[in-house]
Amino acid sequence: MSHQATMDDLISFRRDLHRHPEPAWREFYTTARIVDELETRDLDALYVGPEILGSENRMAVPDDDELDTWFERARAAGAREDILERLTGGYTGALAVFERGEGPTVGLRVDIDALPITESDEETHLPTAEGFRSENEGFMHACGHDAHATIGLGVLDAVLDSDFEGTLKVFFQPSEERVAGGKAVVQGGHLDDVDALLAVHVGLDHPTGEVVCGVDGFLAVSHFRADFTGAPAHAGAKPEEGKNANLAAAAATQNLYSISRHSDGATRVNVGLMGGGTATNIVAEESFIEGEVRGETTELMEYMEDRAHTVIESAAAMYDCEVDIGVEGKAPSARSDEELTTLVRSVSEGVEGVDSILDSDDLGGSEDATYLMQHVQDNGGLAAYVGVGTDHPGGHHTRTFDVDEETIRIAIDVLSGSIEQIAATDPQAS
Amino acid sequence: MSHQATMDDLISFRRDLHRHPEPAWREFYTTARIVDELETRDLDALYVGPEILGSENRMAVPDDDELDTWFERARAAGAREDILERLTGGYTGALAVFERGEGPTVGLRVDIDALPITESDEETHLPTAEGFRSENEGFMHACGHDAHATIGLGVLDAVLDSDFEGTLKVFFQPSEERVAGGKAVVQGGHLDDVDALLAVHVGLDHPTGEVVCGVDGFLAVSHFRADFTGAPAHAGAKPEEGKNANLAAAAATQNLYSISRHSDGATRVNVGLMGGGTATNIVAEESFIEGEVRGETTELMEYMEDRAHTVIESAAAMYDCEVDIGVEGKAPSARSDEELTTLVRSVSEGVEGVDSILDSDDLGGSEDATYLMQHVQDNGGLAAYVGVGTDHPGGHHTRTFDVDEETIRIAIDVLSGSIEQIAATDPQAS
Amino acid sequence: MSHQATMDDLISFRRDLHRHPEPAWREFYTTARIVDELETRDLDALYVGPEILGSENRMAVPDDDELDTWFERARAAGAREDILERLTGGYTGALAVFERGEGPTVGLRVDIDALPITESDEETHLPTAEGFRSENEGFMHACGHDAHATIGLGVLDAVLDSDFEGTLKVFFQPSEERVAGGKAVVQGGHLDDVDALLAVHVGLDHPTGEVVCGVDGFLAVSHFRADFTGAPAHAGAKPEEGKNANLAAAAATQNLYSISRHSDGATRVNVGLMGGGTATNIVAEESFIEGEVRGETTELMEYMEDRAHTVIESAAAMYDCEVDIGVEGKAPSARSDEELTTLVRSVSEGVEGVDSILDSDDLGGSEDATYLMQHVQDNGGLAAYVGVGTDHPGGHHTRTFDVDEETIRIAIDVLSGSIEQIAATDPQAS
Amino acid sequence: MSHQATMDDLISFRRDLHRHPEPAWREFYTTARIVDELETRDLDALYVGPEILGSENRMAVPDDDELDTWFERARAAGAREDILERLTGGYTGALAVFERGEGPTVGLRVDIDALPITESDEETHLPTAEGFRSENEGFMHACGHDAHATIGLGVLDAVLDSDFEGTLKVFFQPSEERVAGGKAVVQGGHLDDVDALLAVHVGLDHPTGEVVCGVDGFLAVSHFRADFTGAPAHAGAKPEEGKNANLAAAAATQNLYSISRHSDGATRVNVGLMGGGTATNIVAEESFIEGEVRGETTELMEYMEDRAHTVIESAAAMYDCEVDIGVEGKAPSARSDEELTTLVRSVSEGVEGVDSILDSDDLGGSEDATYLMQHVQDNGGLAAYVGVGTDHPGGHHTRTFDVDEETIRIAIDVLSGSIEQIAATDPQAS
Repeated sequence: MSHQATMDDLISFRRDLHRHPEPAWREFYTTARIVDELETRDLDALYVGPEILGSENRMAVPDDDELDTWFERARAAGAREDILERLTGGYTGALAVFERGEGPTVGLRVDIDALPITESDEETHLPTAEGFRSENEGFMHACGHDAHATIGLGVLDAVLDSDFEGTLKVFFQPSEERVAGGKAVVQGGHLDDVDALLAVHVGLDHPTGEVVCGVDGFLAVSHFRADFTGAPAHAGAKPEEGKNANLAAAAATQNLYSISRHSDGATRVNVGLMGGGTATNIVAEESFIEGEVRGETTELMEYMEDRAHTVIESAAAMYDCEVDIGVEGKAPSARSDEELTTLVRSVSEGVEGVDSILDSDDLGGSEDATYLMQHVQDNGGLAAYVGVGTDHPGGHHTRTFDVDEETIRIAIDVLSGSIEQIAATDPQAS
Repeated sequence: MSHQATMDDLISFRRDLHRHPEPAWREFYTTARIVDELETRDLDALYVGPEILGSENRMAVPDDDELDTWFERARAAGAREDILERLTGGYTGALAVFERGEGPTVGLRVDIDALPITESDEETHLPTAEGFRSENEGFMHACGHDAHATIGLGVLDAVLDSDFEGTLKVFFQPSEERVAGGKAVVQGGHLDDVDALLAVHVGLDHPTGEVVCGVDGFLAVSHFRADFTGAPAHAGAKPEEGKNANLAAAAATQNLYSISRHSDGATRVNVGLMGGGTATNIVAEESFIEGEVRGETTELMEYMEDRAHTVIESAAAMYDCEVDIGVEGKAPSARSDEELTTLVRSVSEGVEGVDSILDSDDLGGSEDATYLMQHVQDNGGLAAYVGVGTDHPGGHHTRTFDVDEETIRIAIDVLSGSIEQIAATDPQAS
Repeated sequence: MSHQATMDDLISFRRDLHRHPEPAWREFYTTARIVDELETRDLDALYVGPEILGSENRMAVPDDDELDTWFERARAAGAREDILERLTGGYTGALAVFERGEGPTVGLRVDIDALPITESDEETHLPTAEGFRSENEGFMHACGHDAHATIGLGVLDAVLDSDFEGTLKVFFQPSEERVAGGKAVVQGGHLDDVDALLAVHVGLDHPTGEVVCGVDGFLAVSHFRADFTGAPAHAGAKPEEGKNANLAAAAATQNLYSISRHSDGATRVNVGLMGGGTATNIVAEESFIEGEVRGETTELMEYMEDRAHTVIESAAAMYDCEVDIGVEGKAPSARSDEELTTLVRSVSEGVEGVDSILDSDDLGGSEDATYLMQHVQDNGGLAAYVGVGTDHPGGHHTRTFDVDEETIRIAIDVLSGSIEQIAATDPQAS
Repeated sequence: MSHQATMDDLISFRRDLHRHPEPAWREFYTTARIVDELETRDLDALYVGPEILGSENRMAVPDDDELDTWFERARAAGAREDILERLTGGYTGALAVFERGEGPTVGLRVDIDALPITESDEETHLPTAEGFRSENEGFMHACGHDAHATIGLGVLDAVLDSDFEGTLKVFFQPSEERVAGGKAVVQGGHLDDVDALLAVHVGLDHPTGEVVCGVDGFLAVSHFRADFTGAPAHAGAKPEEGKNANLAAAAATQNLYSISRHSDGATRVNVGLMGGGTATNIVAEESFIEGEVRGETTELMEYMEDRAHTVIESAAAMYDCEVDIGVEGKAPSARSDEELTTLVRSVSEGVEGVDSILDSDDLGGSEDATYLMQHVQDNGGLAAYVGVGTDHPGGHHTRTFDVDEETIRIAIDVLSGSIEQIAATDPQAS
């Protein structure tokens, strides 16, 4: 594929990414492929990995062994060596910039990471039938980020090919699934001058042909990990000498779910992962839980977070254990600006294949695009999160999820059209 | 080393095993080394792996990947290929038999497996200082089974060299730490004709020079594993669709410890291992707990086991989960016969270096030697579990455990002397 | 006081009820006082106690001892003997009916019961300062139902005195605080011909002078009581023989709060009451919990109810206990009809003292007026729940709650005006 | 009945006490009847209520209302007014002293309180059939203390009538069932000069005719009460403002049972009583648990007590509640001295109706006679706890418990004989 990519090019690009799903901060192959493509475009700047990310308190970074494993896997899959070298330490992602004439700076944010889900191997699952099922067994693009990265590329090409005047920045953001990449991108500084930001997600239970101009209802989220440390003991001979980290983790788990619902709005709590102990006959010295709390607003999320810490610390104290609580990911809530959603609606009305347009809909989940949106809005800019429907056979985050590839074309038209329109009308200025 | 092994030979043999600790059913190197030695002796029969074990419902057998890993590790460490081949499928252990003249069949049982404990790397730890620290990082002979295997060899040599008349069977039993090997050895059938059985353990908080003629107070034990299966769901978007396996596991854990104490005697319960879930934002579909219950008597253990199953099943039902409960290891309680302990006392009185003799002491833990003992006793035979003290710097099952090697010599003298005496007096006949 | 009551009469009537707060199904004094007043009016029918209530599966009825205690207390406080006799068995409440000419049947529902809360005895609390603090120590009109009953009487008088044409039914409903009276009133049948129903509540965090034309956001609710029965045992000598009802209740409590939040809307759960056991040294044979679940919709409440039953039954099974689960109160969700709220707004605009009018507001709690509203609506009629603000120093259900008595006058004007207007315009017909 | 009581007198005395069971610190009728009898004997001193008890930190004393209720009940049952007046404040119990010649001071301790258990009303239950079933409904002499008080009187008479030389002190101790009276009696000072102490219990699963010379195996015990205080809130409208005392109590309960078993010996834990909250729709502000921990030794009990406090405090912290933990009763472990048990054996051999004598047996429960025994032993004296078997149809602390009255005669013979023998041989001196 070369500039200017055809739809066939884009679809085969998406399928290549689909075959190589990589989880948060390990998007080595993915980034290398994106950068490889971007280098063929006539850009004003191309930033890679550490050049777009803040390095302070980066959340949810895996350990070196884990990073190495995926680094080698990317190399083995044929990722370009010279690009890989720029990504060491799990600094993944890329940013394409081009400037043309006077005009606002418009940002587009797409995310690129995959999930720890084993992809369906049934023939009824299109990627299996068509031969682009995941080659990284146990991992899968089950939320459409392969399509998102492709849309980013397609929008870039479309805008390059238009009368757009202004600056376009396309952010290929890593580690969204761990809600850890958004904050790092904000800290990287490249959003500081963005006047209007669009983010995009396919699907979200909307069919192909439906566009949601401004998704709302983001739940603010915080991921935590609590490591309990007690004291081991022989469970038969000296049980009383143990400080039971497994019991502390179990008590924490049970009581985390008991945090009171809140009358101000929706909250969530989940202990998604747990693990502890070494042998049946040893009182567990170490145990951990990893989970998340959410809230309809950032305040509600913080209410849950405060209470969660109290519960976890009390559960540790109950069994004479120490506990270390870390925050592994975080995103605020956010809202789409009406100035942009109105604009997206008017553009969508002219896009072929769009037969239903919603002004807004609730996401009901979390997304760290909200960090970027909030940052732009805090600086006086505008932001909207655009949903582009796709017929997906299985739900998001399930093993039979897939994207109707027609959606990619629609999304490119809607987003590139909107970006051109933003440049033309500068809605923020009005 | 060759027959007749000197103490120096035996110590270097023990240190070799110490450097290559292998957990339950993965004692490939260990078995190969033992068999290699046994082949140099003048035996009437030498059984290896599957030849000594029943194959039905063998407990706690790891999966093939895990077995392969250790198999290759043994090969890489230099284990004899021809012996390894006889051990595939995790059928480890060996049995040496020799017959001489008329007389009773006497058994000696030693165990050979190691623990998933990381050995101390401080210079104050003798194996580190002397260069025979574990080479299988994360695993360790932290309960002296390296010494036990060595004692088995030493006793064999000593009896071979004596006036013993009868049949001697030395069982090198695998998988004691998972209390899974004992039952398999009984099912293998080689104990059916044993008239008197001795088992041995070093240490047990007794110093070098102290002998416990008949250890008692074995806690009957049962290891369980419960696998909970619920339904996954996005924890933010559709939490109500989840059936939370982690919560079921946590509820089970909390309530297992609440099983009532029993007025008939000591009981124990421990959830040693737990784990579940795949991601912070997914309601866990699968979770497991692995643990054990014990009782001062087999009945008390069974009381705990019954109650534990009710708790686990109810916890699963509480969260609409399915649960599969498996028994992973089991041992009854047992007692040492006075006819044998009296004999061991009289022999010990004449052993150099023995300065304290106790008739009995409570183990306070579990041991699947009890399966062998009970089987021999059920057939009308006698059994005793002999403790041979050793100065051990760290406690059993801790990373600084070690054996005072003088103990090996004392144990060989006490046990070979007792075996000769059994043959001479046939205490069962009296 | 006699017909036509002045505001002074009404205020002293309200203070009399305030001095004699009576909880659900025990409103003997209250009903007797109301009936005593109603008898002086020119009514077409006056129904008392069992004449207005269905008797099948009445929820939350106290036992005979408890009923007797309050019956005698009412008698001692001076309630009329002949009326009391009509209320035996805890059939409390009254219904006043008058018909005049042709016109729709309009219902007004007020509730009359009090709460188990100890009223403040500080001088800053007006009822204390003015001498009408609760004389039933431990019980209090802490939600304004004394004002509601008074408003019912005042509205009746005002409508009697107006040009109203149609039928007016004023329901003085018992047992709202236990959400148990509403269903019984529906079952009593007197609502079957009601074309339009108004219900009223004072306060709800709105100040004096503010009217909410149609309160919405009722949470559907279900009250449960679970009685666990295990087996007693001496906790020292034979703990294992116990089946621990207290542990079952504690496990149920912990896990009830862990029922997953729901993405369709707000849910609630509370174990408000618990109790069990007889002595520290006896394993508790009996224990109970009493609580409630709520949902933003009836479906969400039923989701919680289903899950709650599973949790409670599993907790019982976990400890080999039996459990009996009863439903003690229940109310669906409901909404106010716009036809009525528009009418209430237009009337309120002309009422002296009203300086703020809201079309709607969320209650955020539960109310069994919803049973009545839903029944009228199911029959093709209209319903609205009108909020009349009052400056209340303490929150609802706290010991310093009180009503600004000016509110009583405003409520009478708003409601009687609305009733007259309903009769005049018959909004349902339009 | 007057001095010298016949067996018929004693049996009717026992039945009178049985008809008037009174719980801890409320033994008004019981004490009055005992004192009424004692006054007819020729004693050197007769101490009543406050004269025998220390007043500092008396445990488990009920509130004034509760004391008044029982006080009035005793008066109504015909207790002597002049004696009742000496017992105000719940200072119950009595001490009879007589001195004759030179000789050791011998103590006998009997307890006098009853239990909160409803007595069986079936005709198969002898007290029902014979008309001496409990008249204090809900309370019952279900542990034989009615027989103990009678035995105390009978032994006094027997010794008075013998050649005994020395001092005899018969302690009628209150509040044993709450293990609260023993410490108070020790603090009262009358035990300071006792050289040998006997305590007695009937039954304990031994049949009529069997004597246990020295009961051992007392579990040390500590009773606790934890009062949790949170914050109330409307469970529907503002659940997040609540600090849920019921949840704190439930979490404490669950985790108290999870305190690890101890390898040094038997432990126990029980939450016998729990209660909290005011209404289903209010987050509970207050909740309590009342329970006990025990240990085979005083150290084991203290291990449990320490851990229990940590659990309770952590459970409170978990839900932002305050907690107040009180100790409501306590008793150490103790052992019977062999010098005395040998003497009891020799006496028992000569007692008519005794057909089985055991040197010792484990109680398996707790008793605050241990406070008295330990105090005497600490002062250099001797103590033994004598069991006198009785055929009891129902178990101790059940509603069908009863005493075979022949036991009373046997106990009097064994104990008076032993006391005379102690005086004769002064075993402590030897």
